[in-house]
Amino acid sequence: MEIPLSVPFLTTALTGPLQDLERKLLSQQAKIECWLRQQWRKDPPPLYSSVDLRNAGFKLAPVDTNLYPAGFNNLNREFFPLCVQAMQATLEALPAHVSTILLIPENHTRNLFYLESLSVLREILLQSGFAVEIGSLREDLTEGVEIASQSGQLLPMYPVVREGNRLLVHTQRGVFNPDLVLLNHDLSGAVPAILQGLEQQVQPPTELGWATRLKSQHFSHYQTIAEEFGGQFGFDPWWISPFFQRCHEVDFLTKKGESCLLAGAELLFAQIEEKYREYEIPHRPYIVVKTDAGSYGMGVMSASSVDELRGLNHKRRGRMASTKGGEAVTKVILQEGVYSFETVGEAVAEPVVYMIGKNVVGGFYRVHADRSPTENLNSPGASFRPLAFQQSCNMPDLQRADACSANRFYSYGVIARLAALAAGREQTAAKGASHV
Amino acid sequence: MEIPLSVPFLTTALTGPLQDLERKLLSQQAKIECWLRQQWRKDPPPLYSSVDLRNAGFKLAPVDTNLYPAGFNNLNREFFPLCVQAMQATLEALPAHVSTILLIPENHTRNLFYLESLSVLREILLQSGFAVEIGSLREDLTEGVEIASQSGQLLPMYPVVREGNRLLVHTQRGVFNPDLVLLNHDLSGAVPAILQGLEQQVQPPTELGWATRLKSQHFSHYQTIAEEFGGQFGFDPWWISPFFQRCHEVDFLTKKGESCLLAGAELLFAQIEEKYREYEIPHRPYIVVKTDAGSYGMGVMSASSVDELRGLNHKRRGRMASTKGGEAVTKVILQEGVYSFETVGEAVAEPVVYMIGKNVVGGFYRVHADRSPTENLNSPGASFRPLAFQQSCNMPDLQRADACSANRFYSYGVIARLAALAAGREQTAAKGASHV
Repeated sequence: MEIPLSVPFLTTALTGPLQDLERKLLSQQAKIECWLRQQWRKDPPPLYSSVDLRNAGFKLAPVDTNLYPAGFNNLNREFFPLCVQAMQATLEALPAHVSTILLIPENHTRNLFYLESLSVLREILLQSGFAVEIGSLREDLTEGVEIASQSGQLLPMYPVVREGNRLLVHTQRGVFNPDLVLLNHDLSGAVPAILQGLEQQVQPPTELGWATRLKSQHFSHYQTIAEEFGGQFGFDPWWISPFFQRCHEVDFLTKKGESCLLAGAELLFAQIEEKYREYEIPHRPYIVVKTDAGSYGMGVMSASSVDELRGLNHKRRGRMASTKGGEAVTKVILQEGVYSFETVGEAVAEPVVYMIGKNVVGGFYRVHADRSPTENLNSPGASFRPLAFQQSCNMPDLQRADACSANRFYSYGVIARLAALAAGREQTAAKGASHV
Repeated sequence: MEIPLSVPFLTTALTGPLQDLERKLLSQQAKIECWLRQQWRKDPPPLYSSVDLRNAGFKLAPVDTNLYPAGFNNLNREFFPLCVQAMQATLEALPAHVSTILLIPENHTRNLFYLESLSVLREILLQSGFAVEIGSLREDLTEGVEIASQSGQLLPMYPVVREGNRLLVHTQRGVFNPDLVLLNHDLSGAVPAILQGLEQQVQPPTELGWATRLKSQHFSHYQTIAEEFGGQFGFDPWWISPFFQRCHEVDFLTKKGESCLLAGAELLFAQIEEKYREYEIPHRPYIVVKTDAGSYGMGVMSASSVDELRGLNHKRRGRMASTKGGEAVTKVILQEGVYSFETVGEAVAEPVVYMIGKNVVGGFYRVHADRSPTENLNSPGASFRPLAFQQSCNMPDLQRADACSANRFYSYGVIARLAALAAGREQTAAKGASHV
């Protein structure tokens, strides 16, 4: 008999033998699920999230956790029943009753791929049995429009209107006064005034937007969780957690704060080298420098030595100096680089795992043919391969069948959920702060 | 773009155009999900259930709702992530915290197919992150044994022990004192003393066992629900609900109570004939007679006229006179027969839909090559075809693509959930009664 797994059966790109970590996770599956259940009770996860993972074989770690995920269109369509079931359970668990939802997207509604994701997210909500309208914050939008997504799906979209402390939209069918404002807008830069002090429920809370959220805070919670989890299940937390440092007064153009960067990098390389020695890892350590607040994909660079960081040319400095919304980067996180030893075809790949509430609902590979195993793949030229449900993975024995790729994906689902738990703790902390 | 659906994409056997009912359900999907969500709040569904449906084209109705389902082994393995996600959500919603579960199976543990289902159910619970042991009520079991299922999976099974008001088992690793007693035993005949007055949670509650449950009560709740639902969504409740009558003092051998049977059948045929005339249905009405309390599959017969019922020969009377556990049948339900116009290959098929809590988690076809469209398929010789996830169902437009079989399965999931809601109302009523 095959052994059923609690997360989708997915095919991973890695085919080598399982490493110690994966073996430990697989053999303690029931206890891990039980541990997670207890954690969610204290710190419920955010409404949805996507986690970028890197699998170096000796190490499997999250490198970014997105709380306003796009890319729903890259999920395998077989995952829809899971998405809908998870969305129903997650929205039903909110404190106040929800029947009607105003979905607020990013403003860059000329990106057809983003619109495709938005269209799929809207379908998940509709099929979950909620009334949904899309309300845009775009200031140039003065009346309802229909915008075509990449596949030609027409999305009705209305300008958001604030009346008192409520957000509304005026549709052809009348006023839509929603129970829930659902953000798919990452709030880079600042929380727009129109979203502040609403009496409606807002999910995820605006405190988790990039206006206030910091990657270093996320990874600080994650580090604590990795230590608790590693302690509980018997392994070095470093196997699942990247070292990091942060510098908060940096100006790449004027070199202000460079000493913090260089000292942080020095420390980070020393920490990684020690671990590489301990585990006899025959690779060269590297680090990744990125903006601490803001979307990933921009303002990201890899460096394989402190000197490389010191000797940045003007072009690379300029590239690091501003982010998505054009905001100047002053807060920076230096993160241990995690090699990606997964490939799809000839290209380097990293798995992206999607969660709705506590539930892993699918994932895909971000694939980049022009990048090396140390580079950021979330950049122009990346493509996406939906993970397929695993169809036939014969496992006569859980102990021996660990190299089976369905088994392997279980580990991805565990690590991704630990990252969602870290986001849950960010959320708890933000709530505590806002109640003080 | 394909339209995602909220229940598994499944391939149904029916390929003809959609009927009015299916069209009405599909076009009001969001409202239906919302309606169901409100119902579950008042009457939570039982922990799990399986519903036998019959699709006559002009009518789609449940004919039996099982609250201690077997057959988990007949579900497509692709459904496992859905089963696990649903089981986690359902068990977390129970009033008291659950980490440890004692699973109580049927006593007929020589049935290898039943053991296979039990093994899969146990795996679902394990993978959901619960500690699980199997505790048997078999009186001949004096110590722990390992029993091989059909596929050779070894199931450890222990005799149940009662200490005070708790059920325990003694395993090799010590005493297992569970938080939850999970019944997969349908309690035909009587609730064993060992299960009465437990301080542990028992799910589904013993009041839903066949010792007290009546099909006629279930269908009476279901009839009310069909009227509410049909009223809400604009169709004749008869489209989804079979007429029924009951007789509670029948002895097939002595012909005691025959007048009730014949009068009931007379009334039932008159009701059905009127509906067949109203909708110009070119078929001959038939009825099904079965035991009102007890497992289906035994004590079931079809009759296409009152005379056929009157003229029963001794052999057919004998077959109706006793049920699974050997109990004498005195309580009988007469139910409108629903033709099954679905076929798999040349054989008549009926869909069986599985739910865990509020969630549709899969289904299969019960197929019987030697039966006609009016006959009971739950009999020796039946085989099972797992429903496959629908892989490619191109639907440019929800309005036009109704014949798509993924669409069609949505209707099955709705009707099955209405049956689970009827069981939820039985549960609410039983609770109310036990608190008086």
